[in-house]
Amino acid sequence: MNPCIIPEVPIDIQGDNRWMSQHERHVSEAKEREPDVIMIGDSIIQKLQSSPIWNDLFEPLHCLNFGIGGDLTQGVLWRIQSGILDNIKPKACVLHVGTNNFGNTPDEISEGILTIIKEIKSKLPECYIILLDLLPRGARPNELRIRNSKVNEIIHEKVKSISRLEVITVNTGLLQSDDTLSAQDMLDYLHPTDSCYRKIFEPVHELLLQILGEAKDIDKEIIGTQ
Amino acid sequence: MNPCIIPEVPIDIQGDNRWMSQHERHVSEAKEREPDVIMIGDSIIQKLQSSPIWNDLFEPLHCLNFGIGGDLTQGVLWRIQSGILDNIKPKACVLHVGTNNFGNTPDEISEGILTIIKEIKSKLPECYIILLDLLPRGARPNELRIRNSKVNEIIHEKVKSISRLEVITVNTGLLQSDDTLSAQDMLDYLHPTDSCYRKIFEPVHELLLQILGEAKDIDKEIIGTQ
Repeated sequence: MNPCIIPEVPIDIQGDNRWMSQHERHVSEAKEREPDVIMIGDSIIQKLQSSPIWNDLFEPLHCLNFGIGGDLTQGVLWRIQSGILDNIKPKACVLHVGTNNFGNTPDEISEGILTIIKEIKSKLPECYIILLDLLPRGARPNELRIRNSKVNEIIHEKVKSISRLEVITVNTGLLQSDDTLSAQDMLDYLHPTDSCYRKIFEPVHELLLQILGEAKDIDKEIIGTQ
Repeated sequence: MNPCIIPEVPIDIQGDNRWMSQHERHVSEAKEREPDVIMIGDSIIQKLQSSPIWNDLFEPLHCLNFGIGGDLTQGVLWRIQSGILDNIKPKACVLHVGTNNFGNTPDEISEGILTIIKEIKSKLPECYIILLDLLPRGARPNELRIRNSKVNEIIHEKVKSISRLEVITVNTGLLQSDDTLSAQDMLDYLHPTDSCYRKIFEPVHELLLQILGEAKDIDKEIIGTQ
């Protein structure tokens, strides 16, 4: 059985229960607020909330951030089944997960991502999904970059037929001509800097504006015909 | 033998060589620039560079950031012996490390920190050291918080006789009356938010201004008497 598709609470190896504390906070935030947009995934999603672009562009869209650093596809699956999507009706969901599934193959990881998409669609059939390509990582070419590229290839092919879903290719322009990642873009060669977050997430914001605009038009039509 | 005091390159478990890439960049930055202040340690140090307070307060002090996410005392020791302190003469060094030494006891960790201090002093005898207390972690009370507190207690006692060194207690006011950490201060219950970085690092900035001011006065006196 592919471990990437089995919902699982990660073992609290460090011993301070931070993963579960964050999940519990997300569930209560979901109950208290009525997000129009949610973001789900790993630290790439989570750290966006600490970047200036969050307050500039995403906070005004009634956006909740359900990113947890280090999370795997199986962790996101568990969280989706355990309360973060209950009681809410977001119009769009942004997803980035899979880069932390170290022990897994591209096939396993992409199946994990597809299972998450199915799960979101089953809980929120009207919700539009924006899937982010896995980002490149490491200053120089390495196995994990190749693995992430393969996941992206597989995913692009497999999601073609899925409605209300768009993949955004975030890795274009991040690799330099010598295939290195710049510290200007990723200080630790994994997480985007503020300027890189802007480069990556401005297209996501554009797309969200479209989706929310269309959703508003539909709402108006429904009200108009009542 | 205490593992915390043995310089060591961490195993590249993830497989993208990010730790070494960051170290190599730090060494070349040290060669190229003439920092008056350096910061060494783990992600608490590293992420400060992504916070607005870095550009506001620390960049103007000619400060270089040698933080690497996840680093242990043994990693910092290895880096100190492998080039980051060569060719530079900073007037002050800020240190936070030890919270990632998961498998170790408070005694082992504090010995690791003390060994780092000795190593810095041996490489840079004139450099003033600002040691930050280990931050609390986890939303609720847990073993790692207790361990970090014990490290702080031991360190406070042991550094009393060391000259040109000051410990800054950064954890005051972070724990709420029910002993929880607020998401306002630490979104992931480990790394400070921007506002929390300001609260923690403004006193560090104040102290650095004093140290750099005194160093300037001494420089003037030397020039005056020549």
